[in-house]
Amino acid sequence: MAAWAELDVLARSPYDLTAPGALSPARIHGYTAHAAGIDLLYATQRVDDAALCALQRLAEESGAIPQFLLMKKGAVLNRIEGYASEERQVLHTACRDIFAPVTPAPEASAQAKAELDKLADFLAALDSGAIVNAAGEPFTDLIQIGIGGSDLGPRALYLALAAYRIAGRRVHFVSNVDPDDAAATLAGLDLARTLVNVVSKSGSTLETMTNEELARKAFAEAGLEPSRHFLAVTGKGSPMDNPARYLRSFYMFDSIGGRYSATSMVGAVMLGFGLGYPQLMEILRGAHAMDLAAEEPDILRNPPLLLALLGIWNHNFLGCETLAILPYSQALVRFTAHLQQCDMESNGKSVTRQGKPLAWKSGPIIWGEPGTNGQHAFYQLIHQGTAIVPAEFIGFRRSQHGRDLLIEQTTSQEKLVANLLAQALALATGQPHENPNRRFAGNRPSAVLLADRLTPYTMGALLALYEAKVVFQGFIWNINSFDQEGVQLGKKLAVRLLAHYAGLRQNPGYSGEATDVLGWALLSAAGMLAE
Amino acid sequence: MAAWAELDVLARSPYDLTAPGALSPARIHGYTAHAAGIDLLYATQRVDDAALCALQRLAEESGAIPQFLLMKKGAVLNRIEGYASEERQVLHTACRDIFAPVTPAPEASAQAKAELDKLADFLAALDSGAIVNAAGEPFTDLIQIGIGGSDLGPRALYLALAAYRIAGRRVHFVSNVDPDDAAATLAGLDLARTLVNVVSKSGSTLETMTNEELARKAFAEAGLEPSRHFLAVTGKGSPMDNPARYLRSFYMFDSIGGRYSATSMVGAVMLGFGLGYPQLMEILRGAHAMDLAAEEPDILRNPPLLLALLGIWNHNFLGCETLAILPYSQALVRFTAHLQQCDMESNGKSVTRQGKPLAWKSGPIIWGEPGTNGQHAFYQLIHQGTAIVPAEFIGFRRSQHGRDLLIEQTTSQEKLVANLLAQALALATGQPHENPNRRFAGNRPSAVLLADRLTPYTMGALLALYEAKVVFQGFIWNINSFDQEGVQLGKKLAVRLLAHYAGLRQNPGYSGEATDVLGWALLSAAGMLAE
Repeated sequence: MAAWAELDVLARSPYDLTAPGALSPARIHGYTAHAAGIDLLYATQRVDDAALCALQRLAEESGAIPQFLLMKKGAVLNRIEGYASEERQVLHTACRDIFAPVTPAPEASAQAKAELDKLADFLAALDSGAIVNAAGEPFTDLIQIGIGGSDLGPRALYLALAAYRIAGRRVHFVSNVDPDDAAATLAGLDLARTLVNVVSKSGSTLETMTNEELARKAFAEAGLEPSRHFLAVTGKGSPMDNPARYLRSFYMFDSIGGRYSATSMVGAVMLGFGLGYPQLMEILRGAHAMDLAAEEPDILRNPPLLLALLGIWNHNFLGCETLAILPYSQALVRFTAHLQQCDMESNGKSVTRQGKPLAWKSGPIIWGEPGTNGQHAFYQLIHQGTAIVPAEFIGFRRSQHGRDLLIEQTTSQEKLVANLLAQALALATGQPHENPNRRFAGNRPSAVLLADRLTPYTMGALLALYEAKVVFQGFIWNINSFDQEGVQLGKKLAVRLLAHYAGLRQNPGYSGEATDVLGWALLSAAGMLAE
Repeated sequence: MAAWAELDVLARSPYDLTAPGALSPARIHGYTAHAAGIDLLYATQRVDDAALCALQRLAEESGAIPQFLLMKKGAVLNRIEGYASEERQVLHTACRDIFAPVTPAPEASAQAKAELDKLADFLAALDSGAIVNAAGEPFTDLIQIGIGGSDLGPRALYLALAAYRIAGRRVHFVSNVDPDDAAATLAGLDLARTLVNVVSKSGSTLETMTNEELARKAFAEAGLEPSRHFLAVTGKGSPMDNPARYLRSFYMFDSIGGRYSATSMVGAVMLGFGLGYPQLMEILRGAHAMDLAAEEPDILRNPPLLLALLGIWNHNFLGCETLAILPYSQALVRFTAHLQQCDMESNGKSVTRQGKPLAWKSGPIIWGEPGTNGQHAFYQLIHQGTAIVPAEFIGFRRSQHGRDLLIEQTTSQEKLVANLLAQALALATGQPHENPNRRFAGNRPSAVLLADRLTPYTMGALLALYEAKVVFQGFIWNINSFDQEGVQLGKKLAVRLLAHYAGLRQNPGYSGEATDVLGWALLSAAGMLAE
């Protein structure tokens, strides 16, 4: 692509944020973009108008927007040309297109709407007392059992919006196959008043099936009938698609990948229980507004596309291997972990959509923790380390709880936002000093995402912004962002190792040495064969 | 250093783990090291005996062991020669040397012992009912208010060992200046039966002071006298060193940096309350055992030093910018976050201990999440992405709760360990395939740390292992791992921005435009000046 070559040249002398006057009020005010209640401030990136023009051309040459529109209409984008691959549509946006006057993928939106209607009925029955436990009491708690996309996105959304929870209702999560995870959660609850929402598209995910069995056993031991407490979210025809075992069953579809499924039934059942149906609709509305904004071809008016391009500039042209996502909000404590999955599982790839080896770097490593906590932890390296870490800060002008205190004439929320902005400024400008240990080189790029308040609507918009960003980057890198073949080999080898345990349990004289020399040696060196 | 040049040559053809026979049972059994109940398996690193010999020489040429011994004796290692710097001893090991027959730093160990004795008395008084609330009831909950080192390490230890907690006692943490953090925690507790442990060495940490004020206000509003509930852990002579305001005060000392302070009073008061004094002693005993093992000059018999050197091999010679630390244990859910601080704040530096610019890379970016969860999230990139991510896996042969279930002839704990080992194997060997999207290149290095069970002793040993690893790497890179000048600039700019809020609050006509053109523009562009 011509734009790629042009960016290569521009990257030899990227914009110097430490030069006198480089960061001016005009630049700070001008380098902003807005959509769905979210402001993107990018004056502290190492770009000027020439670089932005080249990035605009990169977006155009790669067909990012036309592909995004095709995706929303149901094109089969989850594929590798000429090789066996998933061959699926990519329609997470259809869950939100239910609000559009004309829906781009009518069948998928109709499926989504039908499941939402089932959910609305179920939630109304919980509210009215039509569905209660065996003792006639309402349910107060829900445990979501799922892993990966069935855990991280839903959990991130619930924690973000716990301030909006229905009084007396709480949600818990069990994901890890670690038996201590389930044990600790089950031990703390009144199971008689607890629902369990089991989420697995295949209905055969090792961790989820194991934890479901652990939970069913705990319910049975407590004298409770699991089919009065357990809900299923699964694919049609999966081993879990068995309504006799569940109080209610909801469907998920092949066109929505796990890491993009938070606004499908994967997140909706739990969010509907915890926050109520109207708040769930607000999340979807916010996401829909951002999905629409992402269709804008002018990158300066399209925050997800602009953020995607700035990411490519930092990663492919300025050589930064990672991206820190740093929310200045304790409620977003698990949002970075969700984005870590959404981004790295989508774009951690090495072949093109034509099955050729990639000649450029694909997705960066995503990491981060909430601020201001991180400032007291790893920011030392971001400011003075030998690696350059681009940062994306996320903040809110007002707090959720509204419970705040004026200390030395400023509120805690003001302290939070002041710290966020101060970091962006410090990273960009740096500081000369006669003591070399107190020098800051500056020119460390960052972007700031700001919204008024972390509401369900804003959370939906923020989620959709990052989903679109990841998808745009995949289009530009020409990779399939929607499969995950890289998780298969480890799974396969784990099954082989587990067969040795099972073999030993059935026959103490069993040996796997002949059939699996390395696996057997590893189990032995790990001390796992000595009982 | 000669060894450095030698390693540079060796790194041109690092050991190829994908070659036939490269990974043999003999290598898997031979490439192991052991200390304090922890096994290190490193057959899946890209090293052979020649590389290990060169790493041994690197350790010797850099004086890693003699410097470690000097550190434990109280040498002033927290300094930059010829420039203003902290000029402090580094004596976190002295907290554990209380068990040594001859203590290398007698004064620091005596201080640690004196504080532990005060703590033992206090805990005994809680147990006996000599200290109760105004209504004569025992305390059931404790909130730790602290940030950075006063939060991450203590929190990681408490969560790791919650299975060992005293029945009826719970610990909570408030760290972020985000007012929602404190509000959510305070709202869920019976304050009348709650202690608050405020931890700040300087007694002036913005976040901690703010949260203490929020908490004191909540207690006062509930009609409770804060001085009957609040504990202090602070430096002698700090603004918080005022016993009249606190039920009990404990001291922390300048010779222990925040990120190394988990086994000082910073963690001990909370752990003593939650787990009891005997379990606290077990943590210290495990740490002490590893501190002793770290003195061993033969790198093959010194797990922390070997892990430090393998890290340098991957980072400086094989060019890997990050390190993923992946515990296969839900209880270690925050351990990686603690290590992220301990490592990145220590070694994210750009000048030598002589104040010269570094000519080599210092500390890597540390990140990670517990397995198996991560497998369903970001492992795609680790297996098939364009970046190479070295991994350190941590696992345990037996679970903590012991509540497990046999499904398809294997327990959950067996599934957990089988997955861990399978990942190490898959990353090392890779897999050829006719479908390019199902190929795994292999040669992705990892190490495995295994212990029998996550007990207080093992947790102490694991903590000390990583502390020593970080310290050794700093010695070899010739940097000061014990200061954190890089956090100052952001703090300074935040104070400047906050002055604008305060100015506006006192005088609506206030403008910061003339005195702070960029800060004022940033506040304005962020929409923070419109009330």
